[in-house]
Amino acid sequence: MKKSLKQIMGSGLTLSLLALNVAGVATAAETTPSSVPAAPAQSKNLIVLIGDGMGPAEVTAARYYSKKFLNKDRLELDGGYYVGKATTYSQAGPYTSESGAVTDSAAAATAFSTGNKTYNNAISVSNGDVAKPFGSIIEAAMKQGKATGLVTTDSIVGATPAVWASHVRQRSNQNAIASQYLASGVNVFFGGGKVNFVTKDEKGKRTDKNIIPDFEAKGYTTAFDKKGLDAIPATADHALGLFALNEIPYVLDRDENTPSLPQLTQKALDILSQNKDGFVLMVEQGRIDHAGHANDLPANIQEMLELDATFKTLVDFAKKDGNTSVVVTADHETGGLSLGINNVYELNVDLFNKQKHSYEYLDAILKTAQTADDVRKIVADNIGFTDLSDEEIALILKGDGSSYGRAGGYNAVVSKRLAVGWTGHGHTGVDVGVWAYGPIASLVKGDVDNTDIAKSGAKVIGVDLAAATKELQDKYLYPLFKVTRDNKTLFTAKSLAEALDIQVAWDEATKTVTLSKGSEKLSVLVETGAITENGTASTLVGQVDNGKLYLPLEAFNKLTGKTMTWDSVNERIVKN
Amino acid sequence: MKKSLKQIMGSGLTLSLLALNVAGVATAAETTPSSVPAAPAQSKNLIVLIGDGMGPAEVTAARYYSKKFLNKDRLELDGGYYVGKATTYSQAGPYTSESGAVTDSAAAATAFSTGNKTYNNAISVSNGDVAKPFGSIIEAAMKQGKATGLVTTDSIVGATPAVWASHVRQRSNQNAIASQYLASGVNVFFGGGKVNFVTKDEKGKRTDKNIIPDFEAKGYTTAFDKKGLDAIPATADHALGLFALNEIPYVLDRDENTPSLPQLTQKALDILSQNKDGFVLMVEQGRIDHAGHANDLPANIQEMLELDATFKTLVDFAKKDGNTSVVVTADHETGGLSLGINNVYELNVDLFNKQKHSYEYLDAILKTAQTADDVRKIVADNIGFTDLSDEEIALILKGDGSSYGRAGGYNAVVSKRLAVGWTGHGHTGVDVGVWAYGPIASLVKGDVDNTDIAKSGAKVIGVDLAAATKELQDKYLYPLFKVTRDNKTLFTAKSLAEALDIQVAWDEATKTVTLSKGSEKLSVLVETGAITENGTASTLVGQVDNGKLYLPLEAFNKLTGKTMTWDSVNERIVKN
Repeated sequence: MKKSLKQIMGSGLTLSLLALNVAGVATAAETTPSSVPAAPAQSKNLIVLIGDGMGPAEVTAARYYSKKFLNKDRLELDGGYYVGKATTYSQAGPYTSESGAVTDSAAAATAFSTGNKTYNNAISVSNGDVAKPFGSIIEAAMKQGKATGLVTTDSIVGATPAVWASHVRQRSNQNAIASQYLASGVNVFFGGGKVNFVTKDEKGKRTDKNIIPDFEAKGYTTAFDKKGLDAIPATADHALGLFALNEIPYVLDRDENTPSLPQLTQKALDILSQNKDGFVLMVEQGRIDHAGHANDLPANIQEMLELDATFKTLVDFAKKDGNTSVVVTADHETGGLSLGINNVYELNVDLFNKQKHSYEYLDAILKTAQTADDVRKIVADNIGFTDLSDEEIALILKGDGSSYGRAGGYNAVVSKRLAVGWTGHGHTGVDVGVWAYGPIASLVKGDVDNTDIAKSGAKVIGVDLAAATKELQDKYLYPLFKVTRDNKTLFTAKSLAEALDIQVAWDEATKTVTLSKGSEKLSVLVETGAITENGTASTLVGQVDNGKLYLPLEAFNKLTGKTMTWDSVNERIVKN
Repeated sequence: MKKSLKQIMGSGLTLSLLALNVAGVATAAETTPSSVPAAPAQSKNLIVLIGDGMGPAEVTAARYYSKKFLNKDRLELDGGYYVGKATTYSQAGPYTSESGAVTDSAAAATAFSTGNKTYNNAISVSNGDVAKPFGSIIEAAMKQGKATGLVTTDSIVGATPAVWASHVRQRSNQNAIASQYLASGVNVFFGGGKVNFVTKDEKGKRTDKNIIPDFEAKGYTTAFDKKGLDAIPATADHALGLFALNEIPYVLDRDENTPSLPQLTQKALDILSQNKDGFVLMVEQGRIDHAGHANDLPANIQEMLELDATFKTLVDFAKKDGNTSVVVTADHETGGLSLGINNVYELNVDLFNKQKHSYEYLDAILKTAQTADDVRKIVADNIGFTDLSDEEIALILKGDGSSYGRAGGYNAVVSKRLAVGWTGHGHTGVDVGVWAYGPIASLVKGDVDNTDIAKSGAKVIGVDLAAATKELQDKYLYPLFKVTRDNKTLFTAKSLAEALDIQVAWDEATKTVTLSKGSEKLSVLVETGAITENGTASTLVGQVDNGKLYLPLEAFNKLTGKTMTWDSVNERIVKN
C-alpha cells in the first residue's frame, strides 16, 4: 500500500531531513582517514593474531588447563607479552536496532584492520546510507611491495579475514568477498570456506562459477588438505588453501587430513618471509568464538590453546627474524563466560580435559538418541559422565531452548558440572586483552581502542592507511539501494547526492525535489516520480518508498557527467 | 560413637601419616617469606587501591555509564594507568572443599598485602594445620617509621582491610580483628563495622566491652559521621572513623551524614602525609563486590564510579607530592557479570542511570508488597519501569531463589532489561586488571600474580616483608584446635609438634605415640589418651578424634620448656 505524500512528508519538514530520518537510520559522522604516519618504520613485518571471542575469562580458563594438564605454569601468551586492553564497541547501524555497545566480528575487525569504527555487519566500509570503503593495513602494505597473507580456522571469507582485503556492506555477502580476494593481490589465503569458491554442483554456494581455477590462473598454488599444504613450496608466490567447506573442524574433531593453525601459520610465514620488502600476516583462531557461542568450554579451551601455540610459532619467528612486530587481540568476548557459577567458589578443572569431541561433532549423534539410555551412553562415551541425573538427561533431550538443540542441552549440562557459567549464545561488551612483541608493543600498551591496533600497526611498518583509503574511496561507493519488482536498482536520492556533491532543493508548492550540479538540473515530482531534465521530460523515473526518494544511477550519471556503473555482485557503485 | 583404634589407625599406616590425611586437609607447602629487597626505595609513599569484585566487565560497564551520562569519554582509570592483569587463585584450604581456583577476598587480600598465597578465609596466615602469620606491607612499613592507614566502604574489619594489620585463621572472627587493630599502631582506620567495636547493648557484637574508649586512650581521634570526619584535624596522629554499624551504605542510598570514599581518602591523605618518613595507605571500595553478589548493576556502577573518583583523588595527590606510588587492582570478579545477554548484541545503557536506590534499600519496601500493584508502584518509583509484565511481577514476589529474596527477583528483572547477565551470586576466577602510577608501574606491568602486588609494593618503598613476617612468626602460631565439652582447648599433636620441632614416633605394638624434644619425652596411649611424662604417669590427657591425636598446650610447654599461652580471642598460641 502506497502512503500518501502527506503521510510521507509531514508538513513543515523538508524532504532532505525526511530522507535522513524516516527510515530510522542514524548516519554517523564519517571517520576521516587517519593521518599519514610520519615516523620511519620500526619493523619490516607485521603479524596480527586474533582470538575471535577471546575475552578475559577465556584466557584464564585456558591457563587453568595448562597448569593442570600440560604441566605449564602459564600460557605462552603469559610470558611477558601482555601490554594492555582494548575497547571493542561499534556504531549503531542501518540494518539492526543495535546501539553498537556490543560489537560483532565485522565491525571489530574493520576497526583493528583499518582504524575506523563502523556498524555491526560492515566489512571495511563506513557507516551511513552511502558507505565508503576503508583501506586496511594489508591493502596499504601491498602498495609498498610487501607480501600479505590471511590465515584462519574459520571460513576464509568470514568477517575477521574479510575486512583486510574486501569491502561489502553486509558480511553475509561472502561470494562477493571471495571474488574480491581474487582481485586483491593478497599472497596467501588459508582457511575454510570453500563453499564460496565453488558452485552448487560442488556443494558450494556460487551461482556464477567455480573461481578456484581463476585463482590458479593468477598464480595461486592451491591446497585442500594437510598433504596439499605440505606440498606448497615456500617459493610459491601465491597460495590458496581451502581446508573445509565451511569452518575448519574444532581441534577436538580433526583428523590427520586437516592442518592445524600453527601448521597453516608456519607455511604462511615460510612463503611471506621470502619477500625482501617484508610482509603483513593476519592469523585468526576463529573457533574460540564458535565454541563460545555454543557454550562448549572444553572445545573453547582447545581452540584457545591452539591460538597459544600459534602465538609461540609467531613469536619464535619474530625473535629469530629480528624485524617483526606481533600484536594479539580479540574482537570481543563470546558467551558471557564466567569461571565459577552460583555461589560455589570452585571450578572443576579436573574435568576440563575429559571431552573427546566438541558439541558440533556430537550433535548428529545426539539427534539419534531415542531413550535416556541412549543419551547416557553417548555422554559417557564422549566425556565419561556415567551418573547423569534424570534432569540432565531431560535437558539434553529437550535442548537448551537455543538453536543448538540437544547439543546446547549437552553443553549446559557439561558447563554446570565444570562450574562455569554463560549468560547466552551471543557476544558481550567487556574490554579484551592486547599482547605484543617487538616495536609495536610500546604503541598499543595501556588502555587502547581497537582502532588503535590498526593505526599502530600501520605506523610501525610505515604504511599509509589514508592513501589506501583514498584510492578505494576514489573508486567505490557502497550505497543503500533497493531493487524494484521489475529488477531495477534504485538509490536514495538525498544521501547519494550528498556523496556526489549534488545540490538538493525541495519546493513545497510544487512538491518537487530538484537535484543540480553545475548547469545540470533534474526535477522529480515526488508524487509520481516523474523526472524532468533541465526542464524537459525525461524517461527516467524516481520512486518514493517509506519516506525516501529513490533514483536510478543514470540520474546521477547525468548530473555528474560520469559513467558510473553498478556492480551488483559487490553491491557497490564503480565511480570510474 | 567412638571409633575403634583399628578403624582409626588402619593397619600399616603410622599415626603421623594418618594425622595428616584422615581429616582430608591438604597441607600445602609453606610459602617462605619473600627475600629482602635489595634496591633502594623509589617512592616514599605507597597507596594501594582495591576494587573488591572489580572484574573486567565491571570496569567496562562503568565506562559506558561515564560516556553516556557524565560526558566523559573514559574513566579516570583509563587515563594511561593500565599496566597489566593479575591472576587471583588461592589454595585449597582446611575449612572447605574449595580447590582455590576461585578466591575469596581474604586469600586474595593476603596475597596482595603480604605476597603469599593462602586458603580462602585466611587473614594473613599460612595454609596448614598450624598456620603461621604473614607480615603485610603496612606492618613492615611501621617498622621503618612510616604512617599507615586503612580506608574502606566495607566494614573496617572486613577481609580486605583486615589482612594488613591482623592475623586470624577465619575471617569471620571480626571481634579479634578489631582487637588486633587496637594493638597494631596503624594510624588511620576509616570504614564501617562499628558492631565489632561495641557491645550487644549498643547494637554491637562484642561480649567483652566497648573498645572504642581503648582506641581513644591510645590517642585515636574518633568520628562517626561526616561532621566528625570533617572535625578530625590533619595533625591528628591517629584516627578511628566508624561510619556505619556494618557496611557504609551504597552511594545510591547515602545521606549527608555519611562521608564518601573520596572524602575519607582525602582526610586519610591529610593525616598520613604529615609524617616525614612517608606512609602506606590501603583504600578499598568494598561494595562493588556486594552489588555484584546481589546482581545489582546500577548500584555496582555507582560504586565503581566512586572508586574511579577516589583514584583521581589519589593520583592528584601523588602527582603533586612527587614521591608516591599508586597501584590499583581487584581481589576477584563478583557475580559473573556480562555486558550483553542471550543472543542480543545490545546493552541498554540508557537505563543505567534510572535507579534511585540500591536493592539493599529497596529490600524492606519490597517485603511490604502485598499485591502486583504494590510491586508495580515500588518498581516504578525506584527505576521508572511502568510496564512490568506479569512474569516480572511474579519473579519479584517469589524472589530469585537466592538469599536475596524479592530484592534478588528485582535485580534479575532490572538486569534483563539492561541486557546484562550474571552467572550467580558468588565470585569468579577471571584475571583482574592492574593500574599504576609512579615507580611501582614498571614493577607490576604485564602478567603478574596478585602476590606480586605486595612484593612490588614493599620493594618500591624499600620495606622488608620478610623481617615483618619473621617477627610475627617468632611470636605466634595459628593451629587448628578443638574445644572439648568440658571447655578444654586441644591441638593436633602431629602438626603442632612439627611446627615446634618436636619428634613424633609411633609404636604399633603398644599403640603409643611418643613425642620428644631433647631429653623430654611424652608418651600417649592413643586408645585412652593417657599420658606418661618421661616414664611417669601425668595428669595430662590426650584425645583421638576423627583419626587425629589432640593434646593440650601444657604437653607442648613441657616438651619445649616454654610457657606458651593460648589466646582464645585471636585463636592463636603466643609463643613467648
